[in-house]
Amino acid sequence: MKLGRLNHIGVATPSIADSIAHYRDVMGATDITEPFDMPEQGVKVCFVNTPTHSTGSGHSDSGGTQIELIEPLDENSTIMGFLAKNPLGGQHHVCFEVPDIEIAREAFEDMGKRILGPTRIGAHGTPIFFLHPKDMQGMLTEIMETPREGGHWSN
Amino acid sequence: MKLGRLNHIGVATPSIADSIAHYRDVMGATDITEPFDMPEQGVKVCFVNTPTHSTGSGHSDSGGTQIELIEPLDENSTIMGFLAKNPLGGQHHVCFEVPDIEIAREAFEDMGKRILGPTRIGAHGTPIFFLHPKDMQGMLTEIMETPREGGHWSN
Repeated sequence: MKLGRLNHIGVATPSIADSIAHYRDVMGATDITEPFDMPEQGVKVCFVNTPTHSTGSGHSDSGGTQIELIEPLDENSTIMGFLAKNPLGGQHHVCFEVPDIEIAREAFEDMGKRILGPTRIGAHGTPIFFLHPKDMQGMLTEIMETPREGGHWSN
Repeated sequence: MKLGRLNHIGVATPSIADSIAHYRDVMGATDITEPFDMPEQGVKVCFVNTPTHSTGSGHSDSGGTQIELIEPLDENSTIMGFLAKNPLGGQHHVCFEVPDIEIAREAFEDMGKRILGPTRIGAHGTPIFFLHPKDMQGMLTEIMETPREGGHWSN
């Protein structure tokens, strides 16, 4: 396996609206996607797009690692436990891209890494799975198939 | 202020050697910098360089958001408290670039954000400061001046 792009860092928040205001008004983000619900995970998410260059020719770019803001939809949300321990929110997971999700899943299984549940469609519309933080240096780690050029992944 | 590049995520580890082996052997990283000591912070650090594209033309690139691995140098290290709570290590901070550290410091101060200590030289050789996690959505946040093209920042 070859290390893929750090697609996003997942950041839990008790209020996605407050977090959007923070990234816009305090940090100066100009490119934040519209929040949407993922009911099967019990979360509402949106993405703060970050630039690949801080200084330079002034051309706009937002192809850097994203910040995924994650708010619980209800009491059964997968992030309720995290927010109980971190009421202000905080860094919840990291997500790396791979070219092929099945090959990656098999590779992590072969290395004895615990995979949390089945492969499913993630917030970018491509297949993803999560790895147990205790097998990943203390970090909940998402593995995501790179979106195909020109559009969404489809089967 | 305009959102800058997500330069790196800081990841605490009880053993930088073990973490390097993890990123190399499990995640497939091919570009990891040599660890070096920062005695004034009580830490040893190195950087895992990540690609900006996972798939594509096969050209090598490593200009993505870095993973900064941080191991304590001694019992007084700034990350001992974090590791006491997270013995396996984990996500410790995030670091965004700004074009001018003094302007950024003044802007955060004007917004009432608590700054932790003086501006100092960080692991990339450019000036940095840290913001209190309680003022930053639960995340310890480092602000770093973008390295000048062609070399290190100098005064």
